[in-house]
Amino acid sequence: MSRFITFEGIDGSGKSTQAKLLADYLSGKGEEVFFTKEPGEGKLGEAIRNEILDRRDIDIEPYAELCLFCADRAQHVRELIVPKLKDGCTVICDRYYDSTLAYQGFGRGLDPNLVSHMAMASSLGVEPDITFFLSIPVEQALLRLKDREKERNKMDEEPFEFHSRVDRGYRVLIEKSIPRIKVIEASTSPEEIHTEIKSFFE
Amino acid sequence: MSRFITFEGIDGSGKSTQAKLLADYLSGKGEEVFFTKEPGEGKLGEAIRNEILDRRDIDIEPYAELCLFCADRAQHVRELIVPKLKDGCTVICDRYYDSTLAYQGFGRGLDPNLVSHMAMASSLGVEPDITFFLSIPVEQALLRLKDREKERNKMDEEPFEFHSRVDRGYRVLIEKSIPRIKVIEASTSPEEIHTEIKSFFE
Repeated sequence: MSRFITFEGIDGSGKSTQAKLLADYLSGKGEEVFFTKEPGEGKLGEAIRNEILDRRDIDIEPYAELCLFCADRAQHVRELIVPKLKDGCTVICDRYYDSTLAYQGFGRGLDPNLVSHMAMASSLGVEPDITFFLSIPVEQALLRLKDREKERNKMDEEPFEFHSRVDRGYRVLIEKSIPRIKVIEASTSPEEIHTEIKSFFE
Repeated sequence: MSRFITFEGIDGSGKSTQAKLLADYLSGKGEEVFFTKEPGEGKLGEAIRNEILDRRDIDIEPYAELCLFCADRAQHVRELIVPKLKDGCTVICDRYYDSTLAYQGFGRGLDPNLVSHMAMASSLGVEPDITFFLSIPVEQALLRLKDREKERNKMDEEPFEFHSRVDRGYRVLIEKSIPRIKVIEASTSPEEIHTEIKSFFE
C-alpha cells in the first residue's frame, strides 16, 4: 500500500533528521521506502537549485522565487513522487507545498491567495496522507542552525524576522485543523521526537 | 518620456524582425531605445533558458514550464525593464505576458484563470503601453520556421496543432478589444509591415 508522508517546519526544527529516522524505521519494518526532498531533485530541480537558488550573485525577486519552487515541485511530483507511489512505495518528502505557503506566502509576504493556488497546482493534485509539523521556538531553531555552518543555504541566512514570519505562516495553517497535519513538539531530544512520530505507525 | 512596447505573435510571424526594425527606427529618431526579449535575459533568465528550457533531456511538465516563464519575467521586469523605463528609455520587448496566456494557457491547455493570474503577477504591475500582435495564418508561419533551422528552439518544433491552439489563444485575447493591443496584418512583406507599425509613432 503506497503512502505519502511529508515533513514540515522552520529551518533548524530537526525535520530532516526526523524524516530520515522515519524512513529507516519504516524500511526496517519491511516497507519499500522512497526518501526525497524539495527543492533540488531530478535534472530540472538540480538546475533550479544549483544554477539559481544557491547562487550568491542573483538577488531573486520574491515572485520569481515562488515560481521556481513551484516549477521544482511540479516536475518532482511527475518524475519521482507519482511513479514511486504507483510502485507501491511509502514516499517520505522533506518539505512539500506547506513550505511554499509558509516561506513564500508569509516569509516573503506574497499574496496568500495566489501562493495558495500556485502551491496547490504545483502538486498536480497529489496530497500528502500525513504531514508532520515539527514545532519549535524560532530562537531555538536558529541556535541549531548556527552549529550547522556547512549545510547552510541562502534561506538559512535570512534574519530572525523572516523565520518568525515563516513560523507564523505554519501556525496559521495549523489553526485550520487540517486532519493530515500532525503537530509534533520538537524542542526535546531526537529520540523522544522519533518515538512520538513512530507512534503514528504502530 | 519612457514607453513600453511589446511584440506578440506565433513563432514565424516575423515579430522579432519587426521589433528590431522598430527599435532601429525609434533610435534613428533620437529616442533612447532598450531592446530586450523573453525568455532568457539576465543571469536568472539565462540559467532558465540554457540549463532548463533548451535542454533536450528534460521533458518539462507544463505547469513547471508556466512557472519558469513567470520566474523569468518577474526577474526581467525588476532587473531590466523597470530600471530602463525609470531612465526614460523606450523599452521594446519581444514577447511579454500575452505570450504566457497564449502558449501556456492555450498551447499547453492549463487553467486559463490561474495562467492569467500568474502572468499578471509576473509583470510586477508593469503593463505595456502598446502591444503589436502580428497576425498571420499558422500554415504560413510554420513554412517560415522551416527555413530557419539554425535558430529553432524546442517550442518551434511543436506540432501544427500546438501552434494552432496558441493562435486561438491570441485571437481570444484580441476579441477582448484591449486598447493597447494593435493587430497588424503580417502576411505581407517586412517593409510593408514596418511601414504600418511606424505609422503609430508619427
